[in-house]
Amino acid sequence: MVKVVATNFVQEEKRSEFLELVEELIELTKVKDEGCIKYELYEDSENTNLFTFIEEWESRKCLDKHLASKHFKTIVPLLHGFLAKEGTLNIYKRVL
Amino acid sequence: MVKVVATNFVQEEKRSEFLELVEELIELTKVKDEGCIKYELYEDSENTNLFTFIEEWESRKCLDKHLASKHFKTIVPLLHGFLAKEGTLNIYKRVL
Repeated sequence: MVKVVATNFVQEEKRSEFLELVEELIELTKVKDEGCIKYELYEDSENTNLFTFIEEWESRKCLDKHLASKHFKTIVPLLHGFLAKEGTLNIYKRVL
Repeated sequence: MVKVVATNFVQEEKRSEFLELVEELIELTKVKDEGCIKYELYEDSENTNLFTFIEEWESRKCLDKHLASKHFKTIVPLLHGFLAKEGTLNIYKRVL
């Protein structure tokens, strides 16, 4: 199993557009992508407009297929247009 | 429900000491702290020695009690002594 944590600092005036597109990405991912255990979006309780994906994939191979999928490659560049600054993406394996 | 993501950049030579202490913290937290749904440690697949807690708590109140607990206040300062640089701690609520 691999876990993904991806932060997104969204422009204040683009919040609703960002959220609508993320909803679409989540739906398509759940329908189309094999090995997706969880694909959730969280909002930071202190830093306004910081939205973070927390995902769980059966394997790195499944995650890589998702990253190469048509819906990911179409939607994610559009999401980047709504960001105020660059975020981070970490891929984790469980230790404890 | 609240989610916590806390990053720790650990000194190379302190990895095993860090992990031993984290194991103790996780055990004490699971036994003593009400409302702890998940308390897990992950290692980044690309950044060596980056260890990240990903936690799930029933409520912010339960999390705050944990942060004020004796075991947290004893062990976390010791863990900080093993870090190479300061990490981040984010508290999230689910949106999608």
